[in-house]
Amino acid sequence: MKIEIHTPSQNSVITCQKGCFKSLTPKFLCGHKNFVLTDSNVYSLYREDILSVFGATTPVYVLPAGEESKTHQNLFLILQAMIDAELHRNSYLFAVGGGVVGDIGGLAASLYMRGIHCVQVPTTLLAQVDSSVGGKTAVDMGKVKNVVGAFYQPEAVLVDSTFLHTLPEREIRCGLGEIVKYGGLNGDIFNRLRSNIRQLSSLDFLAEITPDCIAHKADVVRRDEREANERKSLNMGHTTAHALELYYGNLSHGEFVLIGMYYELKIALDMGMVSPDYAEQLNELIIAVLGEIPKYANVSQAVTFAKLDKKNSKSDEVSMIVPTSHGQYAELKLAYEKYLWYMQQFANQP
Amino acid sequence: MKIEIHTPSQNSVITCQKGCFKSLTPKFLCGHKNFVLTDSNVYSLYREDILSVFGATTPVYVLPAGEESKTHQNLFLILQAMIDAELHRNSYLFAVGGGVVGDIGGLAASLYMRGIHCVQVPTTLLAQVDSSVGGKTAVDMGKVKNVVGAFYQPEAVLVDSTFLHTLPEREIRCGLGEIVKYGGLNGDIFNRLRSNIRQLSSLDFLAEITPDCIAHKADVVRRDEREANERKSLNMGHTTAHALELYYGNLSHGEFVLIGMYYELKIALDMGMVSPDYAEQLNELIIAVLGEIPKYANVSQAVTFAKLDKKNSKSDEVSMIVPTSHGQYAELKLAYEKYLWYMQQFANQP
Repeated sequence: MKIEIHTPSQNSVITCQKGCFKSLTPKFLCGHKNFVLTDSNVYSLYREDILSVFGATTPVYVLPAGEESKTHQNLFLILQAMIDAELHRNSYLFAVGGGVVGDIGGLAASLYMRGIHCVQVPTTLLAQVDSSVGGKTAVDMGKVKNVVGAFYQPEAVLVDSTFLHTLPEREIRCGLGEIVKYGGLNGDIFNRLRSNIRQLSSLDFLAEITPDCIAHKADVVRRDEREANERKSLNMGHTTAHALELYYGNLSHGEFVLIGMYYELKIALDMGMVSPDYAEQLNELIIAVLGEIPKYANVSQAVTFAKLDKKNSKSDEVSMIVPTSHGQYAELKLAYEKYLWYMQQFANQP
Repeated sequence: MKIEIHTPSQNSVITCQKGCFKSLTPKFLCGHKNFVLTDSNVYSLYREDILSVFGATTPVYVLPAGEESKTHQNLFLILQAMIDAELHRNSYLFAVGGGVVGDIGGLAASLYMRGIHCVQVPTTLLAQVDSSVGGKTAVDMGKVKNVVGAFYQPEAVLVDSTFLHTLPEREIRCGLGEIVKYGGLNGDIFNRLRSNIRQLSSLDFLAEITPDCIAHKADVVRRDEREANERKSLNMGHTTAHALELYYGNLSHGEFVLIGMYYELKIALDMGMVSPDYAEQLNELIIAVLGEIPKYANVSQAVTFAKLDKKNSKSDEVSMIVPTSHGQYAELKLAYEKYLWYMQQFANQP
């Protein structure tokens, strides 16, 4: 299945097809120098595949696996390696890995000589279903997530479900966090999740729902690449998720997205923005993936990070995207003090 | 005079008007946090103007003056200061300075939260006539110039000839390097330069020719923002200039552009691409600005840097833009060995 994103600046073709990493990558390789970015987890599992697909002369840069690799220091080590490899304007960078590899690799490709070709090969469920698509690239600085980045569409995204077979259960849960978010935005995806609630983590179901999530995102990105309006909706749950993730950091991004959705849904419910029935149905999906929702003793300190969120347009206001009904959502802007009060009520119990 | 550049991604309005820094800047300042980037030279000359235009609460980041400040380390110090200043997506970055401030400031604005508003206030002739316009931003890495950057149009460029009054003569000569380059690309500008050859550095003449150079560049950028084709022409002389600048570094960028044009013109002449008469007329302009052309004893080592030029599409080939006749030019691709041979013939005399 092919999904295309044509934006004013660039075109991007997303292919969802089992085996496409091996079958389609060679198309991009002829006649110019290329560069592979991956991480230590992926490389230890797929070293032979990577070497056979790219050949022994293509440089492979292996980042240490983990979120803490998404730094500006690593970005410039990668750019230096690209210089050392004498890449040219017509070279390709292949980002073979999860969200970190895709984000930092996409940014390196966008910056090197003001932009070379980039092919994303997402190997985690989270990256396949969400982060590899749409051209958002970034690194973190200190405690501020994704604060330095660019909008840069990859020329191609190769979504190959083969990689999912080696993913640990927790990585599947992480990707499901974003999939349930798409359920909060899209009525069809919501219905499919509800009717498969007992088998959400089966690889067959995931391979089937992934293109639908990508197609939803592609529609949004086509209309609003630079996140002036509609693209903000893709951050449902993320305001609170990012704050908790920065402060506690003990769970995966997707798990925090579900926790963020849970608390923001409680706020929306208290404010009468969503019906109790629909909120309950969404909660069932969240709990089906997550088990139970953690409580946070130091939530007042954690939520200060929500002030730094890129979506806010004022420093004393917190913006979040909340579900309102089946396939519908709204932007909720809360005074910071009010948001803090809510989070203390809902989460601040040991 | 206003010149507009509408590209697929962004719009940019360039105003050429004496006094526009003080009269137009306040328009951009209301209701959001802003940030000023400048350098130590500009700040020592214009501290009071900057503080009175931007107010005491706007952070002013002062880079050490000079090309060696255009590093990725400084880029990330600036981005950290922008985070510390709690800038938001609707904040403005003002780059008040020469080419270095504009290049690094534009890149910081493009990267912070994936892009905030940028206003360029070029204070040198080089920046006014060339580098502040067209959205090329970059930093150097090691010996590779502008290798990390982005295409990012400033929302506004305020070209205020007031700043030229404090420029040292050498900075005027540097800007004239790019102006003579426009003469090699544009027949009207060439004629105006020829008829003012005895007063090229008069401020009245410069204020008059500057908008014409900007208008020429704007036409080219509108048609080819990403330098796929026609925009390469703006690099006339720059292939050799960059190589000599990197190796010797003892003159200004604009002076090296003239030296690069001189040697590349000799190559084009030897290859029969340009008539001796027209080459002689262009040489008169080059020498009117530069006095005499330096010889280079180690030119073989210097020209190895030409291999790294972004315009090259192969590693053993050097691409350059050479004048062919009045207002006309061509791209010349030379095997690296041939280019080296020419440079040894023409420049390698002590």
